[in-house]
Amino acid sequence: MTTEERVRKGDVRAAARLMRDIEDGHPSARETLKRLFPNTGHAHIIGITGPPGTGKSTIVDRLIGILRKEGKTIGVLAVDPSSTLTGGAILGDRIRMQRHALDNGVFIRSVATRGHVGGVSRSTRDLVAVLDAMGKDIILIETVGAGQDEVEISHIAHTNVVVIIPGLGDGIQAIKAGILETAAIFVVNKSDLEGADSAVNDIRMLVLLRAADKTDWQPPILKTEAKANTGVVELASAVEQHGEYIKRNRSHEMRQNDLKYSFLNALRDGLFQKALAHLQTDSRMDSIMENLEKRRTDPYTAAEEAIDELLNRKSAP
Amino acid sequence: MTTEERVRKGDVRAAARLMRDIEDGHPSARETLKRLFPNTGHAHIIGITGPPGTGKSTIVDRLIGILRKEGKTIGVLAVDPSSTLTGGAILGDRIRMQRHALDNGVFIRSVATRGHVGGVSRSTRDLVAVLDAMGKDIILIETVGAGQDEVEISHIAHTNVVVIIPGLGDGIQAIKAGILETAAIFVVNKSDLEGADSAVNDIRMLVLLRAADKTDWQPPILKTEAKANTGVVELASAVEQHGEYIKRNRSHEMRQNDLKYSFLNALRDGLFQKALAHLQTDSRMDSIMENLEKRRTDPYTAAEEAIDELLNRKSAP
Repeated sequence: MTTEERVRKGDVRAAARLMRDIEDGHPSARETLKRLFPNTGHAHIIGITGPPGTGKSTIVDRLIGILRKEGKTIGVLAVDPSSTLTGGAILGDRIRMQRHALDNGVFIRSVATRGHVGGVSRSTRDLVAVLDAMGKDIILIETVGAGQDEVEISHIAHTNVVVIIPGLGDGIQAIKAGILETAAIFVVNKSDLEGADSAVNDIRMLVLLRAADKTDWQPPILKTEAKANTGVVELASAVEQHGEYIKRNRSHEMRQNDLKYSFLNALRDGLFQKALAHLQTDSRMDSIMENLEKRRTDPYTAAEEAIDELLNRKSAP
Repeated sequence: MTTEERVRKGDVRAAARLMRDIEDGHPSARETLKRLFPNTGHAHIIGITGPPGTGKSTIVDRLIGILRKEGKTIGVLAVDPSSTLTGGAILGDRIRMQRHALDNGVFIRSVATRGHVGGVSRSTRDLVAVLDAMGKDIILIETVGAGQDEVEISHIAHTNVVVIIPGLGDGIQAIKAGILETAAIFVVNKSDLEGADSAVNDIRMLVLLRAADKTDWQPPILKTEAKANTGVVELASAVEQHGEYIKRNRSHEMRQNDLKYSFLNALRDGLFQKALAHLQTDSRMDSIMENLEKRRTDPYTAAEEAIDELLNRKSAP
């Protein structure tokens, strides 16, 4: 059986190997992704974002439990801005999630973003495609941190859940700044802590202030205490309501976004790889570096020359 | 006087306009950057990273005060993962920093990363080049959040200062995961809070565990209470010691890294822009989207075809 046949049947080992090959940039992985493409486009992709320490992993763990009871199959990507040297992703208290690892309906994968230039986006999108092709009904993407990763993931996900906790100070600012417009649901977790109601009010104000939206979806602001299992059923229900809402009202737009994002990612990455391969022939990179170091040229001119050279060759390698 | 002459003389208005043009992707900005390149390569670039709420802005504010007293000129970039819709960066309690705005030796600029695909890296590097060409002795880059932004900035900076606070839980994990190997100095801020010593010990353990380094620099772990002005003089001194260390031992390597990073960024960005311009001619993008939507092709094959098309044309536009 081919890799793609195995992945389509939900074979975990084949999927895990394919995902590793994707992260390693193995050329065969791209060929497999091409053949899996017809099997994608069915999953509901949910992003769980928010600053560190807000309990996102616990929320994901609870959502898995609830959605599994409804018979949904689930894929989880835990995105870590990982070590450039070790390449390893640290799971930390995500280990809790692993209690679902024995459940065949759940597939959990940790993603190392590696710190490569432009590293996070492409492989994450492709890993989502693998989970989608496996037939997962729901794909949860969780990220550590509150920076560019989150913004990227808010483009990939259909339903963005933004998690904060009371008393976070500039955590709320980070949300304002990058994620607000794409948020479908807000969660104030650890709502037993002081300041939960004022956090809800802060978010309500932000939602009112945000640029007038094309849609009529009003993002709910939910209070949860995920560790105590409080409010998570309501959260799961809000996630499903938003899923139905976009299916009914925005499914064409969502599908177009998915396709465009995947295409542009593959384009940007593929071009850069071609350029790097080209620069490695005939020690071009060495001579460019020498010219830069001796200040015979500058990085912008050198890049333009390399681009012209690449675009004007008679044939691609 | 040309823009670059004004920037070289440290003219704030000319520099601010150039930086805006860089962020807007204005073609003239790149030409100016080329002409400014010979004036770059002198500044000590310092990254201040760490999770939200750790007091990075206060630390930057204190460092400015101390370094100014020593007669150093300073440029500050405050990187925000900003709104995709409004494009505006939120300053929040960075406004405190603005008390230095009346000081001619300090130039503070907020950077919106915008959530563009690959948005953070290139413009940040180029904005650093402008501050460098202005003759700033020291450039401080501060970022909100703990994700890909931080990893990018750790590549740009010569001296990476990683800030945490006691009791942060998975905040320490986020550091482990992405920034550890490049950290030159660790700071436990708000060290009056419970758990400061245990945070110091956690970091000490991480430093011991980290992959054997080529260098013999041992990252100090400093306790600060930036709001109360405690420990910040020691921090400024550690920053300067690291600056001297790299000047003595790694100046060639650092310079090569700077040049390579700038070149590859310009290459990746320039290629992608060329590709997008090409796709916009003759409604190529529309027909690709139609083929994708009708599932006549997949995003990977479509990207490969677009790349081949671009590379095999007779001449570049």
